[in-house]
Amino acid sequence: MVDSKQPLPAPPSPSNSPQQRRSWWGWGTEDKALPDAECTALGALLPGSAAAPLPVPSVSALTLPRVRVTPPSALAPIMSAAPLDRAAHTYGKAYRDVVRALHGDLAAAPDQVAFPRTERDVVDVLDWAAGADVAVVPYGAGSSVVGGVEYRADRHSGVVSLDLSGLDRVLEIDRLSRAARIQAGALGPALEAQLRPHGLTLRHFPQSFEFSTLGGWLATRAGGHYATLHTHIDDLVESLRVVTPSGVNQSLRLPGSGAGPSPDRLFLGSEGTLGVITEAWMRLQDRPCHKASVSVRFDDFAAATDAVRAIAQSGLHPANCRLLDPGEAALAGVARDGKSLLVLGVESAHVPVDGMLAELVILARDHGGSPVPAAPGGPDADASATWRSAFLRMPYLRDALARMSVISETFETACTWDRAPQLYEAVRRELGDVVRKVTGADAMIDCRFTHVYPDGPAPYFTVIAPGRRGDEVAMWDEIKSAAMQILGDHGATVTHHHAVGRDHRPGYDRQRPEPFALALRAAKRALDPAGILNPGVLLDPDPR
Amino acid sequence: MVDSKQPLPAPPSPSNSPQQRRSWWGWGTEDKALPDAECTALGALLPGSAAAPLPVPSVSALTLPRVRVTPPSALAPIMSAAPLDRAAHTYGKAYRDVVRALHGDLAAAPDQVAFPRTERDVVDVLDWAAGADVAVVPYGAGSSVVGGVEYRADRHSGVVSLDLSGLDRVLEIDRLSRAARIQAGALGPALEAQLRPHGLTLRHFPQSFEFSTLGGWLATRAGGHYATLHTHIDDLVESLRVVTPSGVNQSLRLPGSGAGPSPDRLFLGSEGTLGVITEAWMRLQDRPCHKASVSVRFDDFAAATDAVRAIAQSGLHPANCRLLDPGEAALAGVARDGKSLLVLGVESAHVPVDGMLAELVILARDHGGSPVPAAPGGPDADASATWRSAFLRMPYLRDALARMSVISETFETACTWDRAPQLYEAVRRELGDVVRKVTGADAMIDCRFTHVYPDGPAPYFTVIAPGRRGDEVAMWDEIKSAAMQILGDHGATVTHHHAVGRDHRPGYDRQRPEPFALALRAAKRALDPAGILNPGVLLDPDPR
Repeated sequence: MVDSKQPLPAPPSPSNSPQQRRSWWGWGTEDKALPDAECTALGALLPGSAAAPLPVPSVSALTLPRVRVTPPSALAPIMSAAPLDRAAHTYGKAYRDVVRALHGDLAAAPDQVAFPRTERDVVDVLDWAAGADVAVVPYGAGSSVVGGVEYRADRHSGVVSLDLSGLDRVLEIDRLSRAARIQAGALGPALEAQLRPHGLTLRHFPQSFEFSTLGGWLATRAGGHYATLHTHIDDLVESLRVVTPSGVNQSLRLPGSGAGPSPDRLFLGSEGTLGVITEAWMRLQDRPCHKASVSVRFDDFAAATDAVRAIAQSGLHPANCRLLDPGEAALAGVARDGKSLLVLGVESAHVPVDGMLAELVILARDHGGSPVPAAPGGPDADASATWRSAFLRMPYLRDALARMSVISETFETACTWDRAPQLYEAVRRELGDVVRKVTGADAMIDCRFTHVYPDGPAPYFTVIAPGRRGDEVAMWDEIKSAAMQILGDHGATVTHHHAVGRDHRPGYDRQRPEPFALALRAAKRALDPAGILNPGVLLDPDPR
Repeated sequence: MVDSKQPLPAPPSPSNSPQQRRSWWGWGTEDKALPDAECTALGALLPGSAAAPLPVPSVSALTLPRVRVTPPSALAPIMSAAPLDRAAHTYGKAYRDVVRALHGDLAAAPDQVAFPRTERDVVDVLDWAAGADVAVVPYGAGSSVVGGVEYRADRHSGVVSLDLSGLDRVLEIDRLSRAARIQAGALGPALEAQLRPHGLTLRHFPQSFEFSTLGGWLATRAGGHYATLHTHIDDLVESLRVVTPSGVNQSLRLPGSGAGPSPDRLFLGSEGTLGVITEAWMRLQDRPCHKASVSVRFDDFAAATDAVRAIAQSGLHPANCRLLDPGEAALAGVARDGKSLLVLGVESAHVPVDGMLAELVILARDHGGSPVPAAPGGPDADASATWRSAFLRMPYLRDALARMSVISETFETACTWDRAPQLYEAVRRELGDVVRKVTGADAMIDCRFTHVYPDGPAPYFTVIAPGRRGDEVAMWDEIKSAAMQILGDHGATVTHHHAVGRDHRPGYDRQRPEPFALALRAAKRALDPAGILNPGVLLDPDPR
């Protein structure tokens, strides 16, 4: 028997070395952005790209909108109107965000950025904002790719970006129940570093892991590490603590309950519109010591899809089950021969997993798959490792392409198996037509399945096509609008794990049942009567 | 590849033979109720029970309240004010319900019982009721043990019980996605009978399986067959169709989504207060062909609890993992030597399960468990089968005890592992004191874990003690009130899978976060502006 509740040391202090400084305009850290020469070389591979990269503007050379609100003196110590803070909190990290930043468009900059150090600070900011008619946009680490942290309404006296990154502690660990109370502003690495000494892990590893927070994951129902079973962060939540303008919502720590509709499920996916998540008790895992993985090639994407369905319906629950179509496999550098590639991974902290991997390989072979022998040596032999490295580098390449005025963006969805093949074909054909009309060129439209369920896959599409400098946002918006329409036409969700934000509103509004919209609006008015929380996300702001 | 959408034959017609007629006052069917002599014999085993059973009254001899409302002629064909229909729809099947029926107390009888044949009928009943200020109590098969189907308010012009049992069809099957569209009024056996020809099963087997409906399971977040992983019906839902007074709520069929808070999760557990569930697309399973089970004995309940925790945290997900404390094991007739008994079961439609069972047994042995060899022959050799048969017979025994004026009831909960041992001890000690005070006798208070999670168990308690004829309800209510207080004091939920209804309101109101209560009240007003839907469940009726 181990101690149930353990006092915890302070978290490791974050590095602020210039090499690891966060980019204000693009993904991740400044040191990992591609230099100009590499941008140019990358662009040269793509017909229609610009000849030279867009320069990265200096914030000091840009015009930010006038600051309209000043915080009361009690809040002044945690508020900043510094241009760099305002610029870095203007957008998320969608393609259209990066492009606008590169073009120096900071018209949507918040008036102030608040950096609360305690939950009390969060309460105080909301109290002041509600009285002063100031919109509050909760901000974890700003990795939204759906316009989730960008104020676009026009009816408040001012806008504050509420940056939760100061609340980054693991506060309590219950080793017996394998759970921890964690503050919402903790970035992925900081959170895992605090759990590691206890042999525990949350094992939630979205692509944005380094640059997103627990609170952001919870507010957006993020998709994580597991390709099957516990795909969303939702399943790892034991209880939530949420500061709303109408009081603090603290749910009971429970392993399971049937007492009315789940209070937590109302706040999961509420995207900062109902309250600010400040803490959560999260269900943890023992650190896995048994791991095995294999790559399987398929001549035919349709056969690979059938294999993945059989695996998803087998009850075996592999941790990884990622299917790359031929284009996506080529893009990730793991197959350039027109084959589709399935990456399977299994893991356990308790029992050997080789038998399970063997069962999965049998299912894949039954559908025409050929396992790729893992040759000793070079990283190219291990498609799984190669893919993972490409996966984490992808957003930096996206930024480089943006600088070369190449449209490069993704969108993701989920649908039932009966609709998946038609959806895949429709996106490639119909969206291909749209891209051709918009850009005059043939697009690269590739697909992978990031998560799979017994009743359907979560396809994730990549679109790459030449843009016209200055018109990139309008061009992408036209493509994105068509993509949402195609998804809707095929009964697929507008988002599986990127959230709704502002960019997905048209598709979300079409798929959301109207009675639920009535209920959500009513809940919003009850919890946020002044209508200050992230206006425009999920719901239109109430008319004045 | 199989046909995705298959036209379906009509369901088997229900048997109406007198042997299988539903009991109006007690559990299940009339033919399975214990005859008077068996009631007397059973009572003789328990000190303090009555000398002779309470007679079962004839409905025709009872006084029902005056019928206050008459349906419009268009609805007359689906409405009944027949005394037997009204009597049978007055209560659920809690101990206090059965006792009141036996005492002939039908003061809460609805004025009318509606039997809709189509969803249109449901809409029409709600439209009429909203205009006529008539309360509508949705009714699946009436197995609620928490006062979920009993009108107790006093502010409507009348009350209609809305019996959904006419909507009992499986309407569509998507074999590829392994899902089916099922009407909410289908009883467990009827639903499974319609799925069986397709090789599919929902595998949701609550104790009430024969006498409860899909819609009831969904509205109450019922707990089912699986002791781990997919414990509640919630996890098996692909989409819901709900008739609300403000319109029909139809969610998209999706295997997973991150588009805002889940619409389905607002209606799951809403217990008829927000709308009437009429259909759902449910995720199905292939019928398992690999099965294995074992019983493991422990000298010590604390050691058994540790074993179960290790199993719940192993990632092995056994289908059955039911721990019986010594009293519960004796009651079920599977161990009478003071040992605790763990019943483990594994199953799969796809892969052999013997290896997994072996891993589970290793974990149980590590914590001092002794597997019981399954001797060939007699049913006594197989504790699992013995337990299951006792499990299904239990509610009939409860009714027999009720007739002998013995208090016999259960309550169930869930809590984290760090609190489970103290909770177990507190219930036995503190509630034992309360029962002694109330009844003057020592109670039998036993416990089993019905479901277990990585972060905690779901303990299920049985209380048996002598009552005083005529005072049974008041005595039980005093015991129940203390039980809710003890659960709350230990951070345990007021219900894991029996729902809130009216009986659990005090405990539920204490554990529900107040901002969530505000949101739920607001959602209720938006969807049910006239306040006619199951008033008093989850929320107080709005003041007039």
